[in-house]
Amino acid sequence: MRIVVTGGAGFLGRHFCAKLLSLGHEVLCADNLLTGRRENIEAFEQNPAFRFLPLDVTTPLEVDSPVNAVVHMACPASPPDYLRFPIQTLEVGTIGTRNMLALAHAKEARFLLTSTSEVYGDPKVNPQTEEYWGNVNPIGPRSVYDEAKRASEALTMAYHRRHGLDTRIARIFNTYGPWMRANDGRVVSNFIVQSLQGKNLTIYGDGSQTRSFCYVSDLIEGLTRLLLLEPGSGARVAAQTEDWGIHYPVNVGNPREEKIIDIARIIAEMTGSSSPVKFHPLPKDDPKLRCPDISRARRLLGWEPKVPLEEGLASTISYFRETLG
Amino acid sequence: MRIVVTGGAGFLGRHFCAKLLSLGHEVLCADNLLTGRRENIEAFEQNPAFRFLPLDVTTPLEVDSPVNAVVHMACPASPPDYLRFPIQTLEVGTIGTRNMLALAHAKEARFLLTSTSEVYGDPKVNPQTEEYWGNVNPIGPRSVYDEAKRASEALTMAYHRRHGLDTRIARIFNTYGPWMRANDGRVVSNFIVQSLQGKNLTIYGDGSQTRSFCYVSDLIEGLTRLLLLEPGSGARVAAQTEDWGIHYPVNVGNPREEKIIDIARIIAEMTGSSSPVKFHPLPKDDPKLRCPDISRARRLLGWEPKVPLEEGLASTISYFRETLG
Repeated sequence: MRIVVTGGAGFLGRHFCAKLLSLGHEVLCADNLLTGRRENIEAFEQNPAFRFLPLDVTTPLEVDSPVNAVVHMACPASPPDYLRFPIQTLEVGTIGTRNMLALAHAKEARFLLTSTSEVYGDPKVNPQTEEYWGNVNPIGPRSVYDEAKRASEALTMAYHRRHGLDTRIARIFNTYGPWMRANDGRVVSNFIVQSLQGKNLTIYGDGSQTRSFCYVSDLIEGLTRLLLLEPGSGARVAAQTEDWGIHYPVNVGNPREEKIIDIARIIAEMTGSSSPVKFHPLPKDDPKLRCPDISRARRLLGWEPKVPLEEGLASTISYFRETLG
Repeated sequence: MRIVVTGGAGFLGRHFCAKLLSLGHEVLCADNLLTGRRENIEAFEQNPAFRFLPLDVTTPLEVDSPVNAVVHMACPASPPDYLRFPIQTLEVGTIGTRNMLALAHAKEARFLLTSTSEVYGDPKVNPQTEEYWGNVNPIGPRSVYDEAKRASEALTMAYHRRHGLDTRIARIFNTYGPWMRANDGRVVSNFIVQSLQGKNLTIYGDGSQTRSFCYVSDLIEGLTRLLLLEPGSGARVAAQTEDWGIHYPVNVGNPREEKIIDIARIIAEMTGSSSPVKFHPLPKDDPKLRCPDISRARRLLGWEPKVPLEEGLASTISYFRETLG
């Protein structure tokens, strides 16, 4: 298949491009490098099946050749990033999503939206199933990301319902692994980089809030299965047990919950760091817990995470050791 | 002031244009007439202070002259309309809102977003205060409207936070009055038109769900006060009692709750109709109750609705008697 991947130079985009190339697909990677990095995709640039399109998907994207699928991943995704680029974040999630849906529609291509667990906001149910409508502050500082993704989902469903577009929506939970940015502002990369550099480990709040962390190879396997699922295969099986078809959102993440403070301890131990933990006030509207119910992914995709936390952390730590060094 | 009003040929837009003209302002009314009607604004077209711009605000709007305020009202607003135009509804609420914010920013103009009680979805608290985050299904059929408006609010706050734009957000609850479309699909117009035409009165569900209905002149008075409020006047007063400034959303609606079935009875009585009531299944995700807490509007704007239901219904009934006849 010839697949457009927007945001392909980002952390997850990079891994998804690599996976699709390894499966023999052609990849057109569209990225404006606002938060993505050219170095993430350098390894592919000699590959004739890969093409980099340095552009912003908030302007319409024209592709001469046929396209079989559009994967719309582009979006600043870590809180420091989307708070730094609030308007761009909303634009890529609204105008960008509309443009990419229009491209998929014009090319009669499949469309995959990488949405987020942030659509659940600060959830009042735990774990979160896809049926949960969420608890999101529409006007808080984080709304630039959360509402952009909720609008992206609404747009995606509208194209499916209106035009019969073959759409899929993945709701991605916290993911970590090699190729994260050191200054990305996420929990795992923060702790690893701080440990390796002998700095204080910064915890927001008292560290008792939980997160679930999915290793990137697991996450990408789930996304790949969702993208490549043929209508009538997994969908038919799922239809026997549930109303929801292949086009409804699917949680992709690791249901193993960890307290932030425990993650800090494990990473400090694994890196041999003796950095002290430093507590900071919790940011506004920070979710207190977040854990996916992945029953639907299990049924629909036959997928679940395989990589244990310690193993995933080990390879992430060695990645940062190498790149920071 | 020179004021751009998008959606100015719609039901509320028409009344807002009339009000602003009567106060001596100039109005540039932008409308693509998707659900607005040229006849709504015919009365103003000879007025030199009024100009109609027949255009779609999802394409950038260029105005040569200075502009002091942009009022973004454009959006299909009744469920039959936005279900018929799902993608246009999302587009005007995302791309359209961005374009109008960009216009206000370029002109250093004030910006008023007419948002909606639909951002509260099917609320779990009653009445709804502006602090309530809502209960909205991001992927249901109604999400094309609800999420468009939530994204509009997020965009508006982002422009305020990022660029210091002088923004205001009104969350409008159910409103009725002359110049509603007969086939608009809203409760009050449905019941009146059905009564006058001797047809069955259609109730969705058992009619026990409540709505609050604001007469249009009350609503427009609230919007006008919010638009014209000078920073530091009402805002300063409000700041003594609350954290929230003039830029945060303000509920504008009538807190008097009515059961749908009671509205049907009152209208049948007032029109002298003997039409029987017919019950239909409740549509998906229909909110079971909806009532504004207007404490903030009272404090900030010194505003509350004045027109009793029976009086408002009387003038709406005579409007429809005239226009249907």
